[in-house]
Amino acid sequence: MSPTNQVYIAIIGAGGVGKCFLSQLQTLAARRPSPKLSLCYISTSKKALFKNDYAPIPTENALQALASSSTAPLALPKVVEFLAAAPAKVVLVDNTSSQDVADAYPAFLSRGISIVTPNKKAFSGSYQLWQDIFTASSTSGAKVYHESSVGAGLPVISTLKDLVDTGDEVTKIEGVFSGTMSFLFNSFAPLEGEGGKWSAEVKKAKELGYTEPDPRDDLNGLDVARKLTILARLAGLPVESPTSFPVQSLIPQQLESVATGDEFLQKLPEFDSEMEGTKAAAQNQGKVVRFVGSIDVATKAVKVGLEMFDRSHPIAALKGSDNIISFYTKRYGSNPLIIQGAGAGGDVTAMGVTSDLIKVLAQI
Amino acid sequence: MSPTNQVYIAIIGAGGVGKCFLSQLQTLAARRPSPKLSLCYISTSKKALFKNDYAPIPTENALQALASSSTAPLALPKVVEFLAAAPAKVVLVDNTSSQDVADAYPAFLSRGISIVTPNKKAFSGSYQLWQDIFTASSTSGAKVYHESSVGAGLPVISTLKDLVDTGDEVTKIEGVFSGTMSFLFNSFAPLEGEGGKWSAEVKKAKELGYTEPDPRDDLNGLDVARKLTILARLAGLPVESPTSFPVQSLIPQQLESVATGDEFLQKLPEFDSEMEGTKAAAQNQGKVVRFVGSIDVATKAVKVGLEMFDRSHPIAALKGSDNIISFYTKRYGSNPLIIQGAGAGGDVTAMGVTSDLIKVLAQI
Repeated sequence: MSPTNQVYIAIIGAGGVGKCFLSQLQTLAARRPSPKLSLCYISTSKKALFKNDYAPIPTENALQALASSSTAPLALPKVVEFLAAAPAKVVLVDNTSSQDVADAYPAFLSRGISIVTPNKKAFSGSYQLWQDIFTASSTSGAKVYHESSVGAGLPVISTLKDLVDTGDEVTKIEGVFSGTMSFLFNSFAPLEGEGGKWSAEVKKAKELGYTEPDPRDDLNGLDVARKLTILARLAGLPVESPTSFPVQSLIPQQLESVATGDEFLQKLPEFDSEMEGTKAAAQNQGKVVRFVGSIDVATKAVKVGLEMFDRSHPIAALKGSDNIISFYTKRYGSNPLIIQGAGAGGDVTAMGVTSDLIKVLAQI
Repeated sequence: MSPTNQVYIAIIGAGGVGKCFLSQLQTLAARRPSPKLSLCYISTSKKALFKNDYAPIPTENALQALASSSTAPLALPKVVEFLAAAPAKVVLVDNTSSQDVADAYPAFLSRGISIVTPNKKAFSGSYQLWQDIFTASSTSGAKVYHESSVGAGLPVISTLKDLVDTGDEVTKIEGVFSGTMSFLFNSFAPLEGEGGKWSAEVKKAKELGYTEPDPRDDLNGLDVARKLTILARLAGLPVESPTSFPVQSLIPQQLESVATGDEFLQKLPEFDSEMEGTKAAAQNQGKVVRFVGSIDVATKAVKVGLEMFDRSHPIAALKGSDNIISFYTKRYGSNPLIIQGAGAGGDVTAMGVTSDLIKVLAQI
């Protein structure tokens, strides 16, 4: 524990997850008098709040104060300097999905600044960055936790780490890793009833806020590929990048280059027949189609795309926008260890960040 | 971390879980040079191995050495004294299911000795013992972790703690908490096919080693009641004991007092009609019967017994001797966070103990 019994918290990012995290941090600080948690830096891409003497920023109105701030955020190397000079231990909470912030993790960690984050980019970018991050962490003793980078607050990363650290052999990881894809396929090819047309389901998902502003950013499979990259590396496979294994995109080739998401949605119905064919092929075998990722550790095969599942398979029975992750291991035998539940949303994502913070606080 | 960069490990219990743990400890010590883990005490109820100067006991042949030892175990107060006087931090691994050892936890903890254990008795005994354990831990700073007390190595306790610690509101916990009961009902009332007679399934389960030597020790529901007691307390309910809420026993009243497990099994077929009736009643509603535990946090209702589930419910679809635990919370909404997999067995139980040990080592 920090000798001064105080820990400084720095937050980059105040979007959906950032707002929920700030609220959870306030509750946490109120419930746990020790160590005293002091917010010393908070920024968006446009604005920042901080004092040169590290005077605590009140969490209860930090967002309003940030909105009316006229201070620009520090450049990342300056943030490293500012936090490294703080008079107590510091935990950086990266609530962005920024590659730039991720690229700076080795710099933060090597200066003794611990990191908790839902940002997938740091752990699914180049394998070099992955190595730099964990080397910096083990050299300085600063901690880096990223539970919410896969499955939001579901205990996915921690469970996989526990399996590996206790000497189990993970043989296969399989699941539905995208809330958006889960929602789309549970509606398009449900266990009960017919389901809607593919283009109509994509449109509905967008209207309900389940997709990125341009739905192609979900349909290209990259988000799932990033999560698979993280899990494969934790399972011991040195996967080079999320584009170094087969990833099936659900964007029709002719629509890859249309200018906007709206134009994409408008033209998508012309391509419904292909997805209808896939659905019918599964139905003819008494199965349903789902968008899944899998890692076969022995053959080092990582892949993302459509697969068919028996109607009694847990992946077929998924509901809403839930994720499901199955760990097949030597110890668990033929029945996998399964984790299931909401894998997206501000509150549950922030929960993973907050529980990571609690774990880091117990160790620094 | 311990100033000497060494941590002493003391193990009580060398049965099924103890043997698996010892093997995992050996792997762990070989993989992690720091802190150095030294086994300084190991005992069964009859024998012990230890040196007055805390000289390390080689883990690779500790079991053989223990078997040929002529030293009796120390009385528990003497074990406390012996470990408290060790020249470095100590973690006690209680691999027994002994109430006596559990009752000594406050004494160990108050002397700064951390504890990891699958022993349910400490956390499901009197509420006074529960309070004494956690008061001693928070006063001395010694840690106490018991992941494997519910669901073996499945991340049940850690997930519930994370939910509570990050400020989520757990509204309901429901599941199948006994591998034995899971196996019995998945065979007696399967989703596909007719299933066998109740008494025949109990006999088969015993032959396969899925039950206690006397199957009544599973069928009385107490094991499940103990697990529910632990989870309810973690969720904030001050449950007095595992007998302070309704627990349905599956032992026919007339067979409660027969002398032996064998006599019980011999007479059980005379009572098959009652369980057949329960199965038929469920079938008539298109459901299946399962033995479950549930905690309704708002109404403080904890109960254990038979319930009917829709055939599409995850509890109905369970396989083999798997456990399933569903956490309903404010953040997770209508779809619970679900954890599923093997909830019994030496290796997976020891895995929970070993991962607890890793967490304790990171903090002491």
